[in-house]
Amino acid sequence: MSKTRQEHDDRPGVRTTRPAEEGTDSARAPSTGISRRRLLGTAGVAGATGLALGTAGGAAGYAAARPEEATALTTVGTNAVPFHGTHQPGISTPAHARGHLIAFDLAPGARRKEAAALLRRWSATARALMAGEPATGGGHDTGVALDAGPSSLTVTFGFGRTFFDRTGLGEQRPAALDPLPPFSSDHLDPGRSDGDLWVQIGSDDALVAFHALRALQKEAGTTARVRWQMNGFNRSPGAAAHPITSRNLMGQIDGTKNPKPSEPDFARKIFVPTPPAAGTPAWMAGGSYAVVRRIRMLLDDWEKLSLHKQELVIGRRKSDGAPLTGGTETTEPDLDKRGPDGNLVIPSNAHARISAPEANAGAAMLRRPFSFHDGIGADGTPDAGLLFICWQADPLRGFVPVQRKLDRGDALSAFIRHEASGLFAVPGGAAEGEYVGQRLLES
Amino acid sequence: MSKTRQEHDDRPGVRTTRPAEEGTDSARAPSTGISRRRLLGTAGVAGATGLALGTAGGAAGYAAARPEEATALTTVGTNAVPFHGTHQPGISTPAHARGHLIAFDLAPGARRKEAAALLRRWSATARALMAGEPATGGGHDTGVALDAGPSSLTVTFGFGRTFFDRTGLGEQRPAALDPLPPFSSDHLDPGRSDGDLWVQIGSDDALVAFHALRALQKEAGTTARVRWQMNGFNRSPGAAAHPITSRNLMGQIDGTKNPKPSEPDFARKIFVPTPPAAGTPAWMAGGSYAVVRRIRMLLDDWEKLSLHKQELVIGRRKSDGAPLTGGTETTEPDLDKRGPDGNLVIPSNAHARISAPEANAGAAMLRRPFSFHDGIGADGTPDAGLLFICWQADPLRGFVPVQRKLDRGDALSAFIRHEASGLFAVPGGAAEGEYVGQRLLES
Repeated sequence: MSKTRQEHDDRPGVRTTRPAEEGTDSARAPSTGISRRRLLGTAGVAGATGLALGTAGGAAGYAAARPEEATALTTVGTNAVPFHGTHQPGISTPAHARGHLIAFDLAPGARRKEAAALLRRWSATARALMAGEPATGGGHDTGVALDAGPSSLTVTFGFGRTFFDRTGLGEQRPAALDPLPPFSSDHLDPGRSDGDLWVQIGSDDALVAFHALRALQKEAGTTARVRWQMNGFNRSPGAAAHPITSRNLMGQIDGTKNPKPSEPDFARKIFVPTPPAAGTPAWMAGGSYAVVRRIRMLLDDWEKLSLHKQELVIGRRKSDGAPLTGGTETTEPDLDKRGPDGNLVIPSNAHARISAPEANAGAAMLRRPFSFHDGIGADGTPDAGLLFICWQADPLRGFVPVQRKLDRGDALSAFIRHEASGLFAVPGGAAEGEYVGQRLLES
Repeated sequence: MSKTRQEHDDRPGVRTTRPAEEGTDSARAPSTGISRRRLLGTAGVAGATGLALGTAGGAAGYAAARPEEATALTTVGTNAVPFHGTHQPGISTPAHARGHLIAFDLAPGARRKEAAALLRRWSATARALMAGEPATGGGHDTGVALDAGPSSLTVTFGFGRTFFDRTGLGEQRPAALDPLPPFSSDHLDPGRSDGDLWVQIGSDDALVAFHALRALQKEAGTTARVRWQMNGFNRSPGAAAHPITSRNLMGQIDGTKNPKPSEPDFARKIFVPTPPAAGTPAWMAGGSYAVVRRIRMLLDDWEKLSLHKQELVIGRRKSDGAPLTGGTETTEPDLDKRGPDGNLVIPSNAHARISAPEANAGAAMLRRPFSFHDGIGADGTPDAGLLFICWQADPLRGFVPVQRKLDRGDALSAFIRHEASGLFAVPGGAAEGEYVGQRLLES
C-alpha cells in the first residue's frame, strides 16, 4: 500500500507525488466553462486519459487516478440505466451507493386524472434525469447534478394499497396489496409507513440522487404531499473487493441467498408474468411487489457479543459469509451437521437456517437494501440499520412466510427492530412513449 | 450515452451486454474466502484488469467497468492517506464522498491522564484504519469495513475551548479558541454545538467511514461521551467532471476562491507555523483551527427564485461558476463593472462580493465542507444544507471577519440558517511513535 498521495498535474501523462497534507506542489486542472453536454460527450476520451495513468504500475500507480485531481468522469458517472423496458429500473439493477425512498399521499381532491398527470410528469422527468439531462418540468433545474454524469440513476414508482380507492380504481387493486400480517417484533411508526405512492431513487452519486429527489418532489405540486422520506447508502463502486453481496452495518455479508438473474426461475420469482395469472390485474404485467421495512439495528447490543456468538446468531462466518458448516459463501449450509458436542453446528434459531429458501417452501425474494444511518437516536443509541427492500412476484409467497418464521424463532430478532413498513405494487416498465402506470390509470 | 448496461463476466476480458433489468445473463464472480490482506495486496493487478476493459471504447465501453460486477477494488478503495505527517490528514485532503463529525465531552472525573490515554488509543486506531487494517482496540473489529480498501479514510482530532480547564491545561489554551462572536443570523442549538473533543472522519466509502465512527466511539469508553454527531457527503469520485470545486445542494459551485496548496502562502494561511508566533502555545505547531457550522439551506424558498435572481444573490453564473462580469470560474470578478442600466453587475449584496478575500483584508480560509441531508425537518422543509468546515491559521483573521460581513449584508443570508457552531484547535500531525495531541497532553 502506497504511503503517499499521488496527484494529477493538469498536463496529460504527468504525475506528481507528495506526502499527504504537505500540500505545496499540488497542481489543479484549470476550470473551464464547458457545458454539461460537452462534458458528457467527451467523457470517454477524458476518462481514458485518467484511467490509463492508473494502469502504469500496481497499487501505487493506482493512487494516481484519484478523480478529485482530474477533470474526467469515470464509469461511476457515465453509466446510464435505460428508463424504458419490460421492467422498471432499480429492481435488478446492482446496488447503488446512495438511495432515497419517498412516499406521497394524494392531496384531498386529487383523483385519477391528477394522479395520471403526475405519473406522466414523473416519468418524463425520470427518463430525462436517468439520461443525464436536466429536469425541465416545473421551472428551471436546480443545477445540483450539473457536471455529473447519470451515475446509474434509477427511479422506480409504486402504488400503495390506499391509492386505489382514492382514485376510484378499487377494482384494479391487486389482492397482493392486502395489509401485511402483524409480526410480534413490529414497532411500526404509521407516519413512516405505507403511503399512496412510493418512489425509490438510486444513484452512485449522492448529489445526483438528491437532485432527482428534489425534482420529483417539486413535480408532485399540489397533487401529492410527502408522507415520509428516508435516505440510505451502500458501498461506493470500487471501494470493496466483495461488491455483490455487500456488508450491512452489523458487519455481516448480506444477500448471499438472493436469486441470481442468471438463474432460469429468476423472472418467475421476482416479476409478475405477462399476462398475469388469473386474479392479478392485467396492468401488473412485468411488475413486482416491493416490501419496505426500516429495520433498526441495536448495534450497541450487537457489538457487545463476541465474534463467536455473532456467528452463531447468523449461522455464517463473519469473515467471508461461509456457512458455519464450512466451504465458501456460496456453499450450501449443512443444516443437519452436528459438532463433537452433539449440537447442531448451525443452531436451530440461526438466522441463516430460518430464512433459508429451502426451509420456506422455496419462497424467494430479491433483497436489494440500503443501509441507513440517521445519527444518534433519542435514546442515545445509533439510529442506524437497514432499509430492507425486497422484490417478489407475490409477497404472500415471498416476504410473508419468511418473516413469519423469523418473527417466531430468529436469534437475530433480539438485535433488530422493525420501525416502519410499506408494501407497494410496482407496475412493469414503460414502453417508449408510455408513462409508468399508464396501463392502470388509463384502463 | 449508452442505453444498455454492460457487465462483467467473471472471465478476464469477457464482457456481456444486456438491456438493464432484463436480467437473464448476468454472470457473477465466484466468492472466495480470501483475506482482506490478500485482497489489498492484489488490488493493483485486479484493478488493472477492470480498468483496462474500460478503455476499450468510448463512453459505452466505459460502462463495462462498473465495479459491482467485478471483484476488484479500484483506486476509490485502494487509496490510503498516511496518518503520520507534519499536519493531520483531512485538512488539505481532497473532499471525501462521505464524512462524519462527532463531538465528545469528557466524562466527569476524566482529566488529563485519561484524555491522554484516549488520544493514544484513538491515534493507534486511526493509524490502523487509515492503512486498511482492522481496529483491534477494545475487542474484536465490527467487520463493517472487511473487503474494502482504506478508501482514502482520514481521521482528524481537535480540542474545544472547554477541554483545557477540564484537564487542568488552562494555561495551554490558545487565545484563538475564545468564543466566536454572536452573529445576527445565528439560530444555534447548544446541544449540537461546541464540545471538549472533536473528530472528523472522511472516506470515499460510506461503510468505511461508518466503521471508523463506531470504532472510535467505542474507544471513548468511559472517558468521553458523545455530545453530537453529524453525517455529510460530497460527490462520489468519478461521478462528475468538475470534482475540485463541487456543487452544494443549492446547485452552486462552492469553493472557487479557496486557497490552493500550490500557492506560496497556502501554508501560512492555513497552518500555525513552526515554531508558533508569540502568544500561541508551542504544541499548536503545524496545527490549524477548524470552524464548524451546520448551515441549513432553506431550499423550498431558494428553489422558488428564478435562475437570474439566484445568480444575482451569488454574483456568479450557476452553470459554470464564472463571475457575472464574465470569463470562467477562475476569472477575477470585476466588482466595479456596471451594466447598461448603471447598476453594478455583481450587486452590492452579492455573496461573492462580500465574501471575496480582497474585500476582507486578504482574510483566507480553506473551506472543506460536506453537504448534509437528514430527511425532512419538523417544519416539513428539507433538513439539508452544508456542514461548513473551514480551516485557518487564525480564526480571528479567517472566519470571523468574513462571517461578520456576510452577517450584515449578504443576500444569501435570507436563504440559510446557521443552526450549530463549533471552534476547535487541531494540533499538528503526529510523528512516527507519537499520538495526536501528545505535545499538549505531555507538556
